[in-house]
Amino acid sequence: MNVVIAIDSFKGSLTSLETGEKIKDGVLLAWPEAAVAVRPLADGGEGTVEALTLGMDGVLETVRVTGPLGRPVTCTYGLVERGSEKLAVIEMSGAAGITLVSPEERNPLHTTTYGVGEVILDAIEKGCRKFLLGIGGSATNDGGTGMLQALGFGLLDREGNPVSPGAKGLEQLVSITDAGVNPLLKMCSFRIACDVSNPLCGPRGCSAVYGPQKGADAAMIRQMDEWLSRYAALCPQADPNFPGAGAAGGLGFAFQAFTNAVLEPGADIVLDETGLEEYIQGADIVVTGEGRLDSQTVMGKAPAAVACLAKKYGKTVLAFSGCVTEDARACNQAGIDAYFPILRRPSTLEEAMVKEAAGRNLRDTAEQVFRLVNACKGF
Amino acid sequence: MNVVIAIDSFKGSLTSLETGEKIKDGVLLAWPEAAVAVRPLADGGEGTVEALTLGMDGVLETVRVTGPLGRPVTCTYGLVERGSEKLAVIEMSGAAGITLVSPEERNPLHTTTYGVGEVILDAIEKGCRKFLLGIGGSATNDGGTGMLQALGFGLLDREGNPVSPGAKGLEQLVSITDAGVNPLLKMCSFRIACDVSNPLCGPRGCSAVYGPQKGADAAMIRQMDEWLSRYAALCPQADPNFPGAGAAGGLGFAFQAFTNAVLEPGADIVLDETGLEEYIQGADIVVTGEGRLDSQTVMGKAPAAVACLAKKYGKTVLAFSGCVTEDARACNQAGIDAYFPILRRPSTLEEAMVKEAAGRNLRDTAEQVFRLVNACKGF
Repeated sequence: MNVVIAIDSFKGSLTSLETGEKIKDGVLLAWPEAAVAVRPLADGGEGTVEALTLGMDGVLETVRVTGPLGRPVTCTYGLVERGSEKLAVIEMSGAAGITLVSPEERNPLHTTTYGVGEVILDAIEKGCRKFLLGIGGSATNDGGTGMLQALGFGLLDREGNPVSPGAKGLEQLVSITDAGVNPLLKMCSFRIACDVSNPLCGPRGCSAVYGPQKGADAAMIRQMDEWLSRYAALCPQADPNFPGAGAAGGLGFAFQAFTNAVLEPGADIVLDETGLEEYIQGADIVVTGEGRLDSQTVMGKAPAAVACLAKKYGKTVLAFSGCVTEDARACNQAGIDAYFPILRRPSTLEEAMVKEAAGRNLRDTAEQVFRLVNACKGF
Repeated sequence: MNVVIAIDSFKGSLTSLETGEKIKDGVLLAWPEAAVAVRPLADGGEGTVEALTLGMDGVLETVRVTGPLGRPVTCTYGLVERGSEKLAVIEMSGAAGITLVSPEERNPLHTTTYGVGEVILDAIEKGCRKFLLGIGGSATNDGGTGMLQALGFGLLDREGNPVSPGAKGLEQLVSITDAGVNPLLKMCSFRIACDVSNPLCGPRGCSAVYGPQKGADAAMIRQMDEWLSRYAALCPQADPNFPGAGAAGGLGFAFQAFTNAVLEPGADIVLDETGLEEYIQGADIVVTGEGRLDSQTVMGKAPAAVACLAKKYGKTVLAFSGCVTEDARACNQAGIDAYFPILRRPSTLEEAMVKEAAGRNLRDTAEQVFRLVNACKGF
């Protein structure tokens, strides 16, 4: 019996790998001779760096960079060596994330993605030429201009001086030059984990849709949307209406306009980079899941992607989760043959999320589920 | 795929049959072509009358009898016709149970089993000659003398008058006659569901062990224990040290001394009377469970008895429960291949016990478990 476990983190309780190891413990209690592989799983959002770096035997790097409001922040990213190539795994939110800015200070006119460029430069210096970059949860709406400046692009105002940080700088922007760009950038390839399809501008653009949660009022939204249109006009090589151009306050657009980046669903990139398909091919049972299974799970989230890949090879797919909603039944249609919430007795959400409790519940649930698998294999 | 469900009630939420039907719903959602039989399960305690009567196509009878403190109570018992014989299913607690007496009024010197005898007489009049009688949870410590009086035995004092109700009457008791006994009683056979092994007297006797919860103080316990010894001396045909003689305040002893009763574990009687063995022989999977699975479950409780019977035929046994403790793992050793708590999300005990919630959770859990069975049958 070969079991492959690729389960997303139970956010607030257990990382992807911790979750997988607890399930492995349960499988082996039920079935000591089973061969169990635990693989990392993430969707490009929170936990992606940790899951992929540790799950692919990489190392975590920390680098001091410019935070969204100019104050320094320490960003952790992953460096994975594979043969002769080095992969950097980066979460944009570690350098320009909304959680780095207090609610009172949130103001997209001033928040910048400069630190994202600095993290990329650090990784380039350390030999990385491949990048996996998750761009969810930004505090910014600068069109990625901060990142471009850090990478050496000239974003210049009427007088030929660098524009100010933040969306405010877009107002001043009249030309973009690449004279100072780090020459190694051309040798880098970027896979951008992007789970939104917003264009850069307009009613579905980043200013209108995500501006309010970043601190913008109606007047700021109108202004920023207009400035981003002018910015797009300076970059005829990219399409501001491409789905995802508006991701992370226009950072998606900057990647498309000035790098060879490809925007893809986060889960797909993670499955590909971790080589999960090969593991699945050799498995009898594939285990996935996440902290909460509901009808959203099937909308391109990581467990649904795992199930889809496993069904390509006709494998049995099980899922575990901290809780399930009634509409989680949609997961069955998405290829998850059966799913199991791990609760063992009545408890509050807080009690259930305590790391030790969640781990024990996972192990015990997996044990009983795999005891059942064992008992039914004769049918 | 043949599935037999015999699951105990989820006390406070669902009866045995309701629980079974919800699981059946879940099985059929997962596996529409499965053949599913729902059988009643009980352990001789609360819920036994309802489960067995409804589960064996009997009728519920109600009869007005003398309550434990002399005030009338309405007792419901079951009447099941099987071929030419009629079986009565009775819970002693319906006529003489502790829950019929408020805590302030509890006093075993006065509480009587008289009503138990009246229920038996009612069933005899309605043609019953077989009796299944659960005797847990009594308010009494009268050695079953009240029941004997109702059945027509003379329990007489020095002057030849009937003794008073309750343990107090034992103090007055000097002789027992059967001149007035209903002659049909001899034609009746009794199976007494008894899950305790206490003798009638002494430090493990009913007065010492169960007296306090029935309202006795230390002095009363000493007195009652002595009176019960003298009572036993009047009944040389029975052994006061026989395990279970002390059940229900000595009611077990009265049955042994004055009827052909056999004291047995409640679950064993229930399994036998419901003919579960035959159903199990034709099953692929046997489903059992109860409101809470823990290390006590394996101590002769109904789900363990079901598992034991199923394993005689090598069947796969699953259990469902409202909650499980960590030591429930003992159930695996007792023949339950895998068990599944039905909680789907964090909730309080009260929320989880709401009938509709418990029913939905049961159905949804059974659905996923049987989806897994279906998915694994190829292994």
